[in-house]
Amino acid sequence: MKKTTVMLNGVDLERLAGNIEAIIADSSLARFQFSLSNQWVDGGYNQSAIGDFFGVGKIQSRETPFILANDEPDILLGNDNAPNPVEYVLHALAGCLTTSMVYHAAARGYEITKITTTVEGDLDLRGFLGIDPSVRKGYDNIKVSFDIDGDFTEEEKLEILNLTSFSPVLDIVSNGVPMKICLGSRQEAMTIDC
Amino acid sequence: MKKTTVMLNGVDLERLAGNIEAIIADSSLARFQFSLSNQWVDGGYNQSAIGDFFGVGKIQSRETPFILANDEPDILLGNDNAPNPVEYVLHALAGCLTTSMVYHAAARGYEITKITTTVEGDLDLRGFLGIDPSVRKGYDNIKVSFDIDGDFTEEEKLEILNLTSFSPVLDIVSNGVPMKICLGSRQEAMTIDC
Repeated sequence: MKKTTVMLNGVDLERLAGNIEAIIADSSLARFQFSLSNQWVDGGYNQSAIGDFFGVGKIQSRETPFILANDEPDILLGNDNAPNPVEYVLHALAGCLTTSMVYHAAARGYEITKITTTVEGDLDLRGFLGIDPSVRKGYDNIKVSFDIDGDFTEEEKLEILNLTSFSPVLDIVSNGVPMKICLGSRQEAMTIDC
Repeated sequence: MKKTTVMLNGVDLERLAGNIEAIIADSSLARFQFSLSNQWVDGGYNQSAIGDFFGVGKIQSRETPFILANDEPDILLGNDNAPNPVEYVLHALAGCLTTSMVYHAAARGYEITKITTTVEGDLDLRGFLGIDPSVRKGYDNIKVSFDIDGDFTEEEKLEILNLTSFSPVLDIVSNGVPMKICLGSRQEAMTIDC
């Protein structure tokens, strides 16, 4: 007999509750590691392969890796065959804010019918070009606007909007992440702990 | 007569020098705004459309927007039809570090033959799930390892590696970005400046 599932906003609430219970019982299950390998092709064009990851205590396999390309538009000396890296940041952010909102709204019983988001990031190219060291290289600000549909009061909409605060990418892009950048293959780098 | 170009690492050095000169002469040309709109589909699945952007003093049009999807793997209650948002962050980072290195190496006359990168990000799901407020939601660390090929001494390789410091995404992910998250369509949000 097929197990009945309780879905809300496309989220399986029983599995969500089960995951939370399992992680409360054994916090080591919460450790995830995502990774990729990237290959430079030419100029501003490069490709990442995103395959297996680690989570819930073991390697989670994918049969076929996802292949993603980066390129730059013509005025940034590329061929515009793919979004550029700072555009991917906005995509990651929009997606993560949305998913965080959807999952946490489901857990609270809010049925959302539609979400549309616009994201804008402002950047001064003098930073990247090294023209003015006082100008930062990345975005100097990002603005996200959400349209949320469903049978909600304005107060509930704001409560749902605030569920974006659970977003991992929001945390990354707002607060920064400690980073190591090493020379040498991954294996070499691991032995020297650069 | 076709203009001769001087290409190194796939980068047009004359156009690069021309861009830098133009921006030094008029810093307003350095202002860029990248943007996208994202549509939630179901559960952890959503799609971004990345089209026109603003740069070098005007709107830069693309005939067709890039469409990117986010999904979540099965153990995170999705269907694994696309990378997830935190994987996109690693892709943006790998690509931007590589492109920053390639462009700045070209400007310094370094001919690179191959770059392979691995990126790993560690994350504790207790943050996203709201199980423990002391656990951050995003990556707690990211490690990047570069393999760089070319006719270089070890010292030159390290110098080339350090050119990743020009990367906009490195700045974003290391240092964070001020952010506004608003309710309402972009147009409404613009009028109320949330």
